[in-house]
Amino acid sequence: MSRPIGILGGTGPQGRGIALRLRRTGHDVLLGSRDAGRAAGAARDVGLPEDAGVTNQQAAERGDPVFVAVPYAGMARLLTPLAAALDGKVVVSCVNHLAFDDRGPHTPPVEAGSAAQEAAGLLPGARVVCAFNSVSAPLLLRPDHVFDEDVLVCGDDPAAVEQVVGLADEIDGLRGVPVGPLRLAATVEALTAVLIAVNTRYRTHAGVRITGVA
Amino acid sequence: MSRPIGILGGTGPQGRGIALRLRRTGHDVLLGSRDAGRAAGAARDVGLPEDAGVTNQQAAERGDPVFVAVPYAGMARLLTPLAAALDGKVVVSCVNHLAFDDRGPHTPPVEAGSAAQEAAGLLPGARVVCAFNSVSAPLLLRPDHVFDEDVLVCGDDPAAVEQVVGLADEIDGLRGVPVGPLRLAATVEALTAVLIAVNTRYRTHAGVRITGVA
Repeated sequence: MSRPIGILGGTGPQGRGIALRLRRTGHDVLLGSRDAGRAAGAARDVGLPEDAGVTNQQAAERGDPVFVAVPYAGMARLLTPLAAALDGKVVVSCVNHLAFDDRGPHTPPVEAGSAAQEAAGLLPGARVVCAFNSVSAPLLLRPDHVFDEDVLVCGDDPAAVEQVVGLADEIDGLRGVPVGPLRLAATVEALTAVLIAVNTRYRTHAGVRITGVA
Repeated sequence: MSRPIGILGGTGPQGRGIALRLRRTGHDVLLGSRDAGRAAGAARDVGLPEDAGVTNQQAAERGDPVFVAVPYAGMARLLTPLAAALDGKVVVSCVNHLAFDDRGPHTPPVEAGSAAQEAAGLLPGARVVCAFNSVSAPLLLRPDHVFDEDVLVCGDDPAAVEQVVGLADEIDGLRGVPVGPLRLAATVEALTAVLIAVNTRYRTHAGVRITGVA
């Protein structure tokens, strides 16, 4: 029997958007939050049964794969106590370390190299994959929006990467593209700042396609 | 009277490829090298008159804009003595700090943040733009190849960015997309490592498109 997909930080727009899309492609989804009551409300909002809203701890224990959809500032505090629950599981880091100032968005350095590599360090038994970083949360939440972009996926566990590529492929107009080992995650994460800069200039929701790949 | 376009490091594949394409769109091009004799040979190779092959110093003095198409390892040594010649000019850094090991390509850190920012530091009077980093040199050198990708352009001087976007737009199937200030150059440069990783996996020449931008 396959497990549901867990989403940590499932009440934010990115978490709810991913939950909505994965539910629509037929997956069982558990939407985790610090507060199970808020999670139940968010679950209802995206068409999931109320009891799909659980604590982050429960989403980590019962889910596989488990998405991490929290701001970078809260990531270490969230993941540290979940290392045992996530042992052996595929963990999808959608986390971007973004900052904004008068010159727009940018990506401050992360000591581990990237948020995803930091997650891998906090979860030594998990199979961490970096993906979905640059997919617009508002567009994920528009159920009829057909995407025109790729999900760049990187990770050191080929089967985990393949599984996440498959999940991306299921969503209308998205395509998963494996781009290499986890150490390339810094670029995948930083690309989100570039796309947000483009969004501001063009008042759009920019995405990225890799061309030349059949 | 408009100046020719200068290319520093013009005998390498990237420099020759850019020269070939810019010549075909009607620009005068000066192809610079440490050795003017080698530059003359490279000029002939891409259909330029032999006297378009000059020293890097001459290409810097007479050209505007001036492309920098050398490996990162040689960039500082090349640019430092050219600061006066490049004062006030548009300088296009195509430089990527790439390294390769058993896990493939990656981007070692650069103290200035990126090669382009380092170039800007070495050339305090120049209007440095980062662009053309991820356009495949072998494809530039195939004169009939029609591209299907974008040239991400970043810089702090809007008129310089616009000029370089225009040059990219002139090349078959390329589109220049301004993506923000020069501090985003690290991501634009690192994207090249991601695309090379994709090339290795798919045996292709991958490019990047920004979607959602009309």
